[in-house]
Amino acid sequence: MTDRLPSWKPGPVRDAVEAFLDAAVDVPVPERFACFDNDGTLWCEKPNYVQLDFFVGELARRVDEDPSVGERPELAAVLSGDRAAMAEIGLPAIALALAGLFEGLSPEEFTARCRAFFRSGRNEALDRPYASCTYAPMLELVAELRRLDFTVAIVTGGGTEFVRAISPELYAVAPELVVGTLVSYEYGRVDGDGAPFLRRTAGISGGANEGDVKVSNIQTQLGRRPILAAGNSAGDREMLEWAAAGPGPTLALLVDHDDAEREFAYESVAGSFETTDSITDIGASLGWTVVSMARDWETVFSPG
Amino acid sequence: MTDRLPSWKPGPVRDAVEAFLDAAVDVPVPERFACFDNDGTLWCEKPNYVQLDFFVGELARRVDEDPSVGERPELAAVLSGDRAAMAEIGLPAIALALAGLFEGLSPEEFTARCRAFFRSGRNEALDRPYASCTYAPMLELVAELRRLDFTVAIVTGGGTEFVRAISPELYAVAPELVVGTLVSYEYGRVDGDGAPFLRRTAGISGGANEGDVKVSNIQTQLGRRPILAAGNSAGDREMLEWAAAGPGPTLALLVDHDDAEREFAYESVAGSFETTDSITDIGASLGWTVVSMARDWETVFSPG
Repeated sequence: MTDRLPSWKPGPVRDAVEAFLDAAVDVPVPERFACFDNDGTLWCEKPNYVQLDFFVGELARRVDEDPSVGERPELAAVLSGDRAAMAEIGLPAIALALAGLFEGLSPEEFTARCRAFFRSGRNEALDRPYASCTYAPMLELVAELRRLDFTVAIVTGGGTEFVRAISPELYAVAPELVVGTLVSYEYGRVDGDGAPFLRRTAGISGGANEGDVKVSNIQTQLGRRPILAAGNSAGDREMLEWAAAGPGPTLALLVDHDDAEREFAYESVAGSFETTDSITDIGASLGWTVVSMARDWETVFSPG
Repeated sequence: MTDRLPSWKPGPVRDAVEAFLDAAVDVPVPERFACFDNDGTLWCEKPNYVQLDFFVGELARRVDEDPSVGERPELAAVLSGDRAAMAEIGLPAIALALAGLFEGLSPEEFTARCRAFFRSGRNEALDRPYASCTYAPMLELVAELRRLDFTVAIVTGGGTEFVRAISPELYAVAPELVVGTLVSYEYGRVDGDGAPFLRRTAGISGGANEGDVKVSNIQTQLGRRPILAAGNSAGDREMLEWAAAGPGPTLALLVDHDDAEREFAYESVAGSFETTDSITDIGASLGWTVVSMARDWETVFSPG
């Protein structure tokens, strides 16, 4: 089989992926379970996370209506574009403040806003609509896994509900197979005994879905150990370690963003995680399959 | 279509279920989503929850090895069979203490113990193996929903991992579609930098999956609003209300255990929830479809 992964260049990386696919047919079907990080693994995360573009657009709209919304320090830093202030506050606190802009919305209202943004938005740096910022080689791999009866999940540090809003269209992944960082909900009845409602709060539940939290959340929300895990940042380390340490055939796949010409070249270090080595060096030393975008991918982006 | 639900007797309840099935074909497929409670809804919960039998068996085994295990007040009450003491301590605290017996196990070890118990165990009062204590009419309904491309989830007050251990065999429900009460996990590496491990702690995460927690957990873990919800106890009330209040065709199905001859007759009031009315009366007043086991079911149990 040489043409099942046409967007991958021949070489040791494609060979390793194909060897895993060949070996997986001997794994019982319920154990054929794969977890993919989203940002930087299934689609482009530069110059900004797509979700951050969405949140910042909402912030601009809200400040237009009511300038006092922008006075909160986390949001003021975003509005001013003050990178030093943003770094000091940190992405988790900024993301929490931005997510709070959607407090009170029903899940359906939030999803509708995500989809409207996604459908009209573009990655200006790449001059591509968001829908064609996904990586063709990864989508080919997902399709091949499904052909082999794998269950494919997305395990993202991003907002669960944002990714769920777009995952059916982008990846054909159902909402229950998306695990991310979660807002808390409030359930109640209008006036105490009227129509029931469920609405977003300004709080998050269970912490950011990064690092070892990814592994715990895979168990608690999905209930299976992945035999394939794919990621690109320090926040994916534990998930890849966990997959790689399983019995039987496993694949820990790390995307190295080293292609300044077709995408971006950057060290994959998650915003809120401190590492002394780059995740690429760590992955290589642990025997993971490290994918060089420049060397191993024939095509980068999906036609969309 | 009159023979798609052969275990249901003709009458207004079966008509209501069939009318819902007929209407559901006009609902977009991603919204064809159904949530079933487990104990007392998909299978028998009397004289004890099956999971409680499992936990108590484990307790006996552990006390055999080390009598001091049984000194903890919650466990002493179970061992003595002192119903007054158990009622005073409450089922949630007892369940937590029992779940703590499995602290330190990996998910795979816990699942293996659940399955061994389930395969060898019987409901002595009914003189049936546990595997044939499921309700034939409900399994028929689940099969019919799947024929209509529904996604079917189990939303249980019981332990998520216990139900996941048996749900593929009993209901063909995958682990990610089981939402219940969750233990917390600890992820780490042996000696700090050795092989990764994931093991059960003695704590639970997010509270018991009952009442409004069921609704929030459906949103956070499954990401869709059910258009069908089925239950039998006060702890299912909010889930059924939430389904029934949705737009488009909905079905809120409540099983009334009124069949002392073939199963058990009891008021469905969840152990830790206080209600002044029985859930059957509440359901009838809210316009739910209340299933009388005695009147509406031709057959009660699956052949197994």
